[in-house]
Amino acid sequence: MKRLDTREPNFETAFTTLLSNREEQGQEVHKPVADILAAVRKEGDAALCAFTERFDRLPLTAQQLAFTAQEVEQARAKVSPELLEALDVAAQRIESFHKNQLPSDIRYTDDVGMTLGMRWIPLDAVGLYVPGGKAAYPSSVLMNAIPAKVAGVRRLAMCVPTPDGVINPLVLAAAHRAGVTEIYRVGGAQAVGAMAYGTQTIRPVDRIVGPGNAYVAEAKRQVFGYVGIDSIAGPSDVVVIADSNTNPRLIALDLLAQAEHDECAQATLITPDAAFADTVIQAVEAELRVLSRAAIAGASWARNGAVLICRDMQEAVELANRLAPEHLELMVDDPESLFAHVRHAGAAFLGRFCPEAIGDYVGGPNHVLPTSRTARFASGLSVFDFMKRTTFLSGGPDALRQIGPAAVALAQAEGLEAHALSVSARLDVLAASTPNT
Amino acid sequence: MKRLDTREPNFETAFTTLLSNREEQGQEVHKPVADILAAVRKEGDAALCAFTERFDRLPLTAQQLAFTAQEVEQARAKVSPELLEALDVAAQRIESFHKNQLPSDIRYTDDVGMTLGMRWIPLDAVGLYVPGGKAAYPSSVLMNAIPAKVAGVRRLAMCVPTPDGVINPLVLAAAHRAGVTEIYRVGGAQAVGAMAYGTQTIRPVDRIVGPGNAYVAEAKRQVFGYVGIDSIAGPSDVVVIADSNTNPRLIALDLLAQAEHDECAQATLITPDAAFADTVIQAVEAELRVLSRAAIAGASWARNGAVLICRDMQEAVELANRLAPEHLELMVDDPESLFAHVRHAGAAFLGRFCPEAIGDYVGGPNHVLPTSRTARFASGLSVFDFMKRTTFLSGGPDALRQIGPAAVALAQAEGLEAHALSVSARLDVLAASTPNT
Repeated sequence: MKRLDTREPNFETAFTTLLSNREEQGQEVHKPVADILAAVRKEGDAALCAFTERFDRLPLTAQQLAFTAQEVEQARAKVSPELLEALDVAAQRIESFHKNQLPSDIRYTDDVGMTLGMRWIPLDAVGLYVPGGKAAYPSSVLMNAIPAKVAGVRRLAMCVPTPDGVINPLVLAAAHRAGVTEIYRVGGAQAVGAMAYGTQTIRPVDRIVGPGNAYVAEAKRQVFGYVGIDSIAGPSDVVVIADSNTNPRLIALDLLAQAEHDECAQATLITPDAAFADTVIQAVEAELRVLSRAAIAGASWARNGAVLICRDMQEAVELANRLAPEHLELMVDDPESLFAHVRHAGAAFLGRFCPEAIGDYVGGPNHVLPTSRTARFASGLSVFDFMKRTTFLSGGPDALRQIGPAAVALAQAEGLEAHALSVSARLDVLAASTPNT
Repeated sequence: MKRLDTREPNFETAFTTLLSNREEQGQEVHKPVADILAAVRKEGDAALCAFTERFDRLPLTAQQLAFTAQEVEQARAKVSPELLEALDVAAQRIESFHKNQLPSDIRYTDDVGMTLGMRWIPLDAVGLYVPGGKAAYPSSVLMNAIPAKVAGVRRLAMCVPTPDGVINPLVLAAAHRAGVTEIYRVGGAQAVGAMAYGTQTIRPVDRIVGPGNAYVAEAKRQVFGYVGIDSIAGPSDVVVIADSNTNPRLIALDLLAQAEHDECAQATLITPDAAFADTVIQAVEAELRVLSRAAIAGASWARNGAVLICRDMQEAVELANRLAPEHLELMVDDPESLFAHVRHAGAAFLGRFCPEAIGDYVGGPNHVLPTSRTARFASGLSVFDFMKRTTFLSGGPDALRQIGPAAVALAQAEGLEAHALSVSARLDVLAASTPNT
């Protein structure tokens, strides 16, 4: 863990190093991923089954790629009623928030009599990638699938690897709750290839979303353009801005909730109170003695943890903006006034009784958020990821007469004669049909 | 040119081939682009100058990378008042349309007393790539820069190569009109690298937009994640749906306006009237005898042109949806009723006197649009490309008591103990401080 103070002379150098460590570090898996994608594109199901046997130690026929409705129901029956109820609370709140996101179409007629506008249209088909094994989070299934459903996507296909054939019942229960009925037990770059290019069993989709390991991320990068993708997820991170009125153990737990994800996760506390900072550091150490995931959380905290002591809350927000965190907690008396100055954060959590973990599960806003400081330019998953816009322009002779000549002049200047003629020939037609009065 | 009729038995096979020809065909330039990006990242200005000398035959010092305000003014002075006026008409209309796109923030309090919302925030810094040479279109400068300005982006940096030192005055005039004051005479993958990673002279940006050749596209693909990018542009295309009441020469000119862009451009006519189709084909041939860009337009039409004869207008729209064109012209009596069924198109042009060329220059909606059938999932450039969203969640003890337990249950099921504790410890604090009444 790095403990930095903005009043120390070497702060800027140390902080810049911290920032650059948080930017995306590409892993060089271009070639193996390209090979997998090419094989899936060429051989379809056969390649998909072969890679699943090789990487997941799971021999499958093409007929076994998809989960049957019965298999999903059997998995769901293994989940406790209490958990199904919790899933439902989460699903309802996620659905409600994302319905509020739905954008409105635009349509208006301007001063030259031209009607202009923009229509939002849902995608036809979306693929959801859900990681298997340790990182299989049912909550992420809800967070990925529900916005797509709310947006009006017609077809949702989900891929989730089941290494050694091990199925996570709660993942399938979450898919069921979100209305996903097309689920395949494949993962890795091969799953991305199947969803992008299609196989005999899996029809291609238009956009692929969902987190994954370095191979999945590189596969998404390589199919980008052929299909749409969401952002490429890096290590998860949180910045907690807290004052000394906050219970230090609660702040420690919030930091560790980030650190326990994996050893690359990044938890940062920013506070103007050096003594409070030290109390939180001690509380983190105390919790690490008892936490079940202490090995992971401890490694993350040791390597990537940071405690930044600053002059005041204004400086705290400035540091947070430079860190552009995925998650930002404002654990202070008046979080709204601080939040007004936040420019770069995926999601913000305001108030001492609103920790990030609420947002991870049941808050309503999406927990799929921009990592690796990409909150500078990227946003969390939303209904916008599952819709696209068609602009339109409609006009008659009057509008053409008014704005056509400018188009002709620019087309000629760009050396595009047919562009110019396509407008001027229409103006000629109009001139010929209208007597000069 | 392919002439296909939906009533012929081989139509589906021929149409599927047509579709697959329109999807993005990647060029294998991964390695040379990776090398250029690595050199720029490591050596900064020195690499930028070396590549500009090698690829653009233009020896530059670091001090000469940026255009001075005087150079921009000198270039602008070479542009005729008529053209400056046409640029202004275009700029005003583009600005007006994009202002209508500006989204609204969300904020509401729900039934458990939690306040939820979403704030739209402009990016800090954006890089505009503008191709040099033949494909340097001043109109594209307006289309890229104005939405960024309308969105509220603080800093806009523009890169435009000037091979052999040749400057396009109208490009600089357009940049000036759009309020771009930071312009560099560099291009190719090296320009993308400079904007992504920064050099001594060019500060890094958060997102890079604008079209370019295969090297620029691959460079954008490789820096994606480190910075944001817009979609990767392929060959331009148009689908024109027309009935026999339309002047066939006008339709021919609209098709050729697409074909004249480059030999890869794709122009398609869809009509239910076979005789009209043949008249348009003859009109295209007649225009190709006199058009200044006949060599390019003729090659495009021969290789990629298509005329699809269909049963009726409903089938015409279905074919257009499968083609997911960048531009869609509806040259019919009642374009609105057809447009209601359009699901996949970047931009639509409604009515016989509203050709695509109007939208290319002065319509108002953006002309940077999804190519290569990506209108299935992608949208034209907009203010949304220059803004991002921060969601927020704010709640007190009451809300936590109501939804906290579901979060604890899900966190425990996912094996994330610190997540569960971060909520349950707060519930414990509340229970301890509130007497059980």
